[in-house]
Amino acid sequence: MSLVVVGTMAFDAIETPFGKTDKIVGGSATYVAYTASNFIQDVKQVSIVGYDFPKEEMNDLSSRGVDLEGVTVVPDKKSFFWSGRYHLDMNTRDTLVTDLNVLADFDPVLPESYRNAEFVMLGNLMPSLQKKVIEQMNSKPKLIVLDTMNFWMEVALDDLKDVLTVVDVLLVNDSEARQLTNEYSIVKAAKKILTMGPKYLIIKKGEHGALLFHENNVFFAPALPLEEVFDPTGAGDTFAGGFIGHLAKTKDISFENMKTAIIVGSAMASFCVEKFGVQRLKEISKNDIDGRINEFVQLVNFDIALV
Amino acid sequence: MSLVVVGTMAFDAIETPFGKTDKIVGGSATYVAYTASNFIQDVKQVSIVGYDFPKEEMNDLSSRGVDLEGVTVVPDKKSFFWSGRYHLDMNTRDTLVTDLNVLADFDPVLPESYRNAEFVMLGNLMPSLQKKVIEQMNSKPKLIVLDTMNFWMEVALDDLKDVLTVVDVLLVNDSEARQLTNEYSIVKAAKKILTMGPKYLIIKKGEHGALLFHENNVFFAPALPLEEVFDPTGAGDTFAGGFIGHLAKTKDISFENMKTAIIVGSAMASFCVEKFGVQRLKEISKNDIDGRINEFVQLVNFDIALV
Repeated sequence: MSLVVVGTMAFDAIETPFGKTDKIVGGSATYVAYTASNFIQDVKQVSIVGYDFPKEEMNDLSSRGVDLEGVTVVPDKKSFFWSGRYHLDMNTRDTLVTDLNVLADFDPVLPESYRNAEFVMLGNLMPSLQKKVIEQMNSKPKLIVLDTMNFWMEVALDDLKDVLTVVDVLLVNDSEARQLTNEYSIVKAAKKILTMGPKYLIIKKGEHGALLFHENNVFFAPALPLEEVFDPTGAGDTFAGGFIGHLAKTKDISFENMKTAIIVGSAMASFCVEKFGVQRLKEISKNDIDGRINEFVQLVNFDIALV
Repeated sequence: MSLVVVGTMAFDAIETPFGKTDKIVGGSATYVAYTASNFIQDVKQVSIVGYDFPKEEMNDLSSRGVDLEGVTVVPDKKSFFWSGRYHLDMNTRDTLVTDLNVLADFDPVLPESYRNAEFVMLGNLMPSLQKKVIEQMNSKPKLIVLDTMNFWMEVALDDLKDVLTVVDVLLVNDSEARQLTNEYSIVKAAKKILTMGPKYLIIKKGEHGALLFHENNVFFAPALPLEEVFDPTGAGDTFAGGFIGHLAKTKDISFENMKTAIIVGSAMASFCVEKFGVQRLKEISKNDIDGRINEFVQLVNFDIALV
């Protein structure tokens, strides 16, 4: 089952309480592709990079079955670069540098071979560009998942509301859900968002887990309690990659299977934060993933017959 | 199975974003007793009140099977009074007034009929008084649960560490766990606390649920996502009352049953916050509780076979 992934492929420089990196490979579409390729072999990547984006990284992605035909390489510009410093609680960070570089010209064009994909993951990007991607599909995909952020609520709210009317699943964090709806209560915010277009809403709460809302149903997936969160960069994109990777693999978009997909996403995110960048996502095996998912089962499983 | 409950019976005046009360009945032991009496009929209350504590409240508690022989009534002093104002996020509050009144003289003496109880719930209180209660038991109870707060870590840390060596379960919130251990990571903090005496540790995270640690096992119970948290006062004590109430009822202190007990505690706490004070805890029926527990099953249940 093929999956179109749209987003950034970029460089990050990260400071956490545990260490510091020089420029390393990052970007939302990079994290999604490395994660989803653990589940399916037909990831169709849409992104833009500069002359400086490492060839080895492209080869790594290709060897995992990621189709790079939709990745534009700009020969005379640099790749998008972001640098940030995390606070001790790892839930907040300061942006130190944002160099758009190639991203300023990003106008995603889908290769013809991408336009019949059944799953679409729209990474955090200008909402009008996300809409343009959807419009290039030959027919309505089985499932479109959209990620966004507070920045677009501030500078492009109307465009964001517009694209929301044509997606199936929205991924936001708790403060973004509040900002989008002016509701403090997460439950009230969720109800409002479900009237704005998406039939499914996932609210990510970082170390506090994630909630899935659909009609009058709600499902909660915890985050795995970790001794150390080494680097949270990309955890949200990794979550998204695990979520949509599992759905595309199983071809089942029922609420029941979305619950499982959220556990898969949470498990993948728990690997992501163990090392800097995408490093951990490259190392893990099917066995590692199965073991981690089993830890989630142990974490929340209880015997109701005793009550 | 009898349960000794030690703590305050008091008055609270509460302001939340949703409303404001005059003096209403509160206190840790009051919340625990109203909650635990939904599960067992042999709650043995230890507390101190003034001349102003309502007779009707005492009658209500008696009629639910709560033994009040251990509650001292001081004829010429007022009951403990606390007043506070919650912030919009309901996780933080400012204390406006603390009038100790009778609490300044509290020196709990257990009636002879209490001293063979198999379960003991030590509500948040000066650690040396908690220890004195334990020392009055005729034999080692089956399970001693202790609640405490950051204040005692600041003014009576040695006494707190001393009483921790003789209890089975410690209940704290996440910031208290960090303060007690000087560890930022909750998992590292938990490991340290499990070397300080308690064999079980429950870390409460308010709207983000609760974690149970025991040896190398961890269990997570979510909080129910609620449209409105009307008044969080007493939610922690209600959680404790549901937890120990279920354990005392089932007489089973295995890790498996503690997991269920935490779900029961979470369910009871979700009722508590729906109205001011103990009001909601007085209204609910066995059916209400069973229905709420079933909502927790729905909330976390997923089908791992799909992965």
